[in-house]
Amino acid sequence: MKRPLAYSGLGLAAIAGTFLLMNTLPGCRPSTNTATAVTGDAASKVYVKPGEHDEFYNFVSGGFSGQMAVYGLPSGRLLREIPVFSVDPESGYGYSEETKGMLTTTHGFIPWDDSHHAELSQTDGVPDGKWCFINGNNTPRIALIDLGTFRTHSIIEIPNSAGNHSSPFTTGNSEYVVAGTRFSIPMGSDAERDVPIKTYKENFKGTVSFIHPEPETGKMSIAFQIATPGVNFDLSHAGKGPSEGWFFFSCYNTEQAYSLMEVNSSQRDKDFIMAVNWKLAEQLAKDGKGKRVPGKHHSNWWNHHTHSTETTVYEDVLQLDPKDHPGLVYFMPCPKSPHGCDVDPTGKYIVGSGKLAALIPVFSFEKIQAAIAANDVEGDYAGIPVLKYESVLHGEVKKPGLGPLHTEFDANGNAYTSFFVSSEIVKWNVEKLEVVDRVPTYYSIGHLTVPGGDSKKPWGKYVIAYNKITKDRYLPTGPELSQSAQLYSIDGDKMELLLDFPTTGEPHYAQAIPAELVKPREVKFFKIEENKHPYVAKGEKETKVERKGKEVHVWMTTIRSHFAPDNIEGVKLGDEVYFHVTNLEQDWDVPHGFAVKGAQNAELLIMPGETQTLKWVPTKVGVVPFYCTDFCSALHQEMQGYIRVSPANSNVPLTGYTVSVDAEM
Amino acid sequence: MKRPLAYSGLGLAAIAGTFLLMNTLPGCRPSTNTATAVTGDAASKVYVKPGEHDEFYNFVSGGFSGQMAVYGLPSGRLLREIPVFSVDPESGYGYSEETKGMLTTTHGFIPWDDSHHAELSQTDGVPDGKWCFINGNNTPRIALIDLGTFRTHSIIEIPNSAGNHSSPFTTGNSEYVVAGTRFSIPMGSDAERDVPIKTYKENFKGTVSFIHPEPETGKMSIAFQIATPGVNFDLSHAGKGPSEGWFFFSCYNTEQAYSLMEVNSSQRDKDFIMAVNWKLAEQLAKDGKGKRVPGKHHSNWWNHHTHSTETTVYEDVLQLDPKDHPGLVYFMPCPKSPHGCDVDPTGKYIVGSGKLAALIPVFSFEKIQAAIAANDVEGDYAGIPVLKYESVLHGEVKKPGLGPLHTEFDANGNAYTSFFVSSEIVKWNVEKLEVVDRVPTYYSIGHLTVPGGDSKKPWGKYVIAYNKITKDRYLPTGPELSQSAQLYSIDGDKMELLLDFPTTGEPHYAQAIPAELVKPREVKFFKIEENKHPYVAKGEKETKVERKGKEVHVWMTTIRSHFAPDNIEGVKLGDEVYFHVTNLEQDWDVPHGFAVKGAQNAELLIMPGETQTLKWVPTKVGVVPFYCTDFCSALHQEMQGYIRVSPANSNVPLTGYTVSVDAEM
Repeated sequence: MKRPLAYSGLGLAAIAGTFLLMNTLPGCRPSTNTATAVTGDAASKVYVKPGEHDEFYNFVSGGFSGQMAVYGLPSGRLLREIPVFSVDPESGYGYSEETKGMLTTTHGFIPWDDSHHAELSQTDGVPDGKWCFINGNNTPRIALIDLGTFRTHSIIEIPNSAGNHSSPFTTGNSEYVVAGTRFSIPMGSDAERDVPIKTYKENFKGTVSFIHPEPETGKMSIAFQIATPGVNFDLSHAGKGPSEGWFFFSCYNTEQAYSLMEVNSSQRDKDFIMAVNWKLAEQLAKDGKGKRVPGKHHSNWWNHHTHSTETTVYEDVLQLDPKDHPGLVYFMPCPKSPHGCDVDPTGKYIVGSGKLAALIPVFSFEKIQAAIAANDVEGDYAGIPVLKYESVLHGEVKKPGLGPLHTEFDANGNAYTSFFVSSEIVKWNVEKLEVVDRVPTYYSIGHLTVPGGDSKKPWGKYVIAYNKITKDRYLPTGPELSQSAQLYSIDGDKMELLLDFPTTGEPHYAQAIPAELVKPREVKFFKIEENKHPYVAKGEKETKVERKGKEVHVWMTTIRSHFAPDNIEGVKLGDEVYFHVTNLEQDWDVPHGFAVKGAQNAELLIMPGETQTLKWVPTKVGVVPFYCTDFCSALHQEMQGYIRVSPANSNVPLTGYTVSVDAEM
Repeated sequence: MKRPLAYSGLGLAAIAGTFLLMNTLPGCRPSTNTATAVTGDAASKVYVKPGEHDEFYNFVSGGFSGQMAVYGLPSGRLLREIPVFSVDPESGYGYSEETKGMLTTTHGFIPWDDSHHAELSQTDGVPDGKWCFINGNNTPRIALIDLGTFRTHSIIEIPNSAGNHSSPFTTGNSEYVVAGTRFSIPMGSDAERDVPIKTYKENFKGTVSFIHPEPETGKMSIAFQIATPGVNFDLSHAGKGPSEGWFFFSCYNTEQAYSLMEVNSSQRDKDFIMAVNWKLAEQLAKDGKGKRVPGKHHSNWWNHHTHSTETTVYEDVLQLDPKDHPGLVYFMPCPKSPHGCDVDPTGKYIVGSGKLAALIPVFSFEKIQAAIAANDVEGDYAGIPVLKYESVLHGEVKKPGLGPLHTEFDANGNAYTSFFVSSEIVKWNVEKLEVVDRVPTYYSIGHLTVPGGDSKKPWGKYVIAYNKITKDRYLPTGPELSQSAQLYSIDGDKMELLLDFPTTGEPHYAQAIPAELVKPREVKFFKIEENKHPYVAKGEKETKVERKGKEVHVWMTTIRSHFAPDNIEGVKLGDEVYFHVTNLEQDWDVPHGFAVKGAQNAELLIMPGETQTLKWVPTKVGVVPFYCTDFCSALHQEMQGYIRVSPANSNVPLTGYTVSVDAEM
């Protein structure tokens, strides 16, 4: 269990297991005299009185939960966890017949993913509170969350990709969100894909994809894909202002290693930031350039009127090869295995965060354009021109800390960079490249966010650290601990730690936005008159039970505090029962739940005005209860019914009914 | 969508949809002049400084999430959500080969349940911090959480039950936890169960079960079951002190209705609290009384050494019929559709909370015993003696509020009762039956808890309200909102609202305990030398890849920052691949995750020293990446590997390897 000998002498590559030790290295240690202690009034700065509202929404990627969590700031309270890529037994997401389609892919039904980056939709380079995008890293996908309903509205699969990490960053008017393959893979026919792993350099390729979300509907499709050499894409950001029309992607493993990557992918002093002229790509696509290549993928879209998924299956994708289109793609050298790739609010500067580097390079968009114009290159990498590092550099922040990962910005010309290894946030001036403040994080920060901090107009006020190690920060909970976030005030010259709050899943990137930009669009319930579900019952008179061969369909309604029908007989072993349950309520916060004993399925959690369907396959003869799972009224406990299951050869007629107080009882 | 005419004139039964209106009824309105406003120092009372720990653990049932959430108090921070009855894609619970068995029942694999009540294990009537029990309401089960690991350690299915609601309350030394059927059902052979629903009175029966958790191992088995008439059991509590040896269960639907229960189960002025002499039942069982009746059920137990589930299937259960055993069971009339059934710290008093009642009856254990001795009955119900209400009553709290649900206690002789309809907590003196304070809740409180508040020695300090309606308490999140809890100080004469905090799922009952009672048992990682998993690899030298017919088994290790092997070839379409992944780390908070692109499965989240298995069935030819999903080190991003899938007729030899920096690359 000791680290193999091969690791010795690798310098920075060996830091993986020893990050705490690194805090003691000269030049890497957070200066304790600048680490602001918690002041007495921190409590009042984060306290939100009962009944009052937080100032910001914080949309936080769930990491290995596959979901998106929504926190209020400054309180750090978890307002809601939105099911996105993983099934959610609690709400029936992925279990109801209607939602299963949201999680289908060309690999079949996928119950889980790893969601890394939340990115708000933008208008003119500023978050507009309409949508929030989030990527699925494992089985490559992008989801669009509608901030009117706080629901996953659209999910698109990314073909010719593996590990959708550098995603879903957006252009300034959300014309596109991007997806770059983290893992390069062999692509093409079965024979082209079935190759020895050691033929990586020859056969493994990458892609970056530009996905277009339709402004009216939120339906997503792939506008075009750009073929790239076989490297690992990590993060990305769009240009803005002067750099509008360009997109920047960090990449590592330019060594093109395929095994023991912690060593073999850390050999080169510099990897790349890839600059893509997406306006040119868009024009090329419009001009009929590029070619359609195989790339079967699903685009799943939630219809708020039918309360159901609509899936479109695409067979191919438009691909552009940079070698065919000079001016489309350039590489810029960037030390070393860069993670963050961030554009400042002015759009003039691009910051690379080489996670094994001891400096931060800041590139100048103006110099990049000049270098391109002058063909100021140091060669090419797999046919793509590599611009000269010194020529495109605005400058370097020297000795800022160790293990820079990600940078956000305020509106006053400052950058905030997270340092995993030296476990701190460092504030520095973008023009002057000077460190102006630093605070420790507990422990080992990954991403950070400033409200609006990757946009043209940061709102500032706070920086939030999303830390990777929790250890002793909270009461212990056995071997598995929650992750931990930290809220710092950035209103003053010095950053001030206000609050630790635990987070669900494992947050990577997150964004925050003033609540006032989101609240006006809130949907409180679904209008029953707009319900177009094929099995809706818009009142108790429309309820019924029908047999279609082995299928029994129940048109059921629910309202405080009963189901109709609540007695069902005539179901037989071997039948499949479909409960189509319509919630007739028309008020906010009156969901009803629906569950059947012994179901090999989850519950339904049905919002007012909505219809959802639970499939139930009885396994035993008998009378089986169903009930409302959401405490809805003083007589909620009485909100139940029975369904009778008879043997397969039974002749019990199929009926569904309720018995009133005056009737036979 | 209007309420049917049949509802008119039903008085209290009509309150279901109109709880807000009821706040204006005379005698039911919380007196506003006693409703304490939030004071200025509330912020400092709930603020826990970064790095400092909360004082109490709060174990909160997840309701329709099926899980148990752990909060810190007074901060209200969600420390962890423990997967119990529902699958958890985030941790692989219910997806790894080892954990699937925890969720199997006689109905097959069940991915969801509805968990209502958290109850800490007790020693001498006081919570001891060893275990926390929680019930599965839908497919009847009880789970035992080990507070050393904060993991679900044991789950037992309850046969002859439907809707396990009045559960899992414990006797004073956790000899037993109980489970009473919420829904009565026909039991027995197929023919006995396949009966018309309208034969309820004749054929539907109930049971209450006493489950024994083995003190050393936490394995659970059913000691005995008591047959009851066909009613709905709601809640329960054990006696203590003088009433030690008895158990009390509230029940409703003594009308024996089976349809439109909101009306038909609310006809009688009084239902019952059922008193069971469990010491006598225990003796009867010991003496060989009762009979074994059919009742197939699973008992699933997590072995912390093999890191796997062990399932025992029982075919029958020992059942005692009260009609055969005089003195075993009595009914006490209790107004009206009682929910809570709570015993005060002295063990002298039993409090019934009739959710449609406008008073709170308090029963005297001494008087119950006197009435039994004197045969002071008002008749029988289905053969079980019904004690006279007036004879067993200590007294009634008059006009306390409307819709009493549940009562907890402090150490100073006070009770705290939640009122759903009038939306308030009412504090009253148990001996004097006098209301001493009341505070409003926002909105419509269900359960409440006081640390130790159902035990012999309440720690007091706070009462926490778990509310059923959230509405405008937090920033809006579309139609679906989190539930909301409220923390009140009870140190002074007046209750003081300190904090609102949102909660996951839909909390019902919860308990709280001083952290110092839990912390000493904490497990921080699993010792690799104690790992008895059949597929463990205790070091990289033990890793290997083996074919067993169509199964490919990979003995894999993970340590910062690589897998071994990380290149696998020779897998063919049609194979099932089992990745047995051992986390070699031996430190706290260093889990590794494991995921494969396109898996129709979740990830594995593997704690240090643990082995877990992911089953993967490839669907396409190609080279597929896998990677670590938990950001573990500075080189986490490099922690990946590839597995090559060849066509079914391929001859690629099966191999697994890593390639060091000195090798062929």
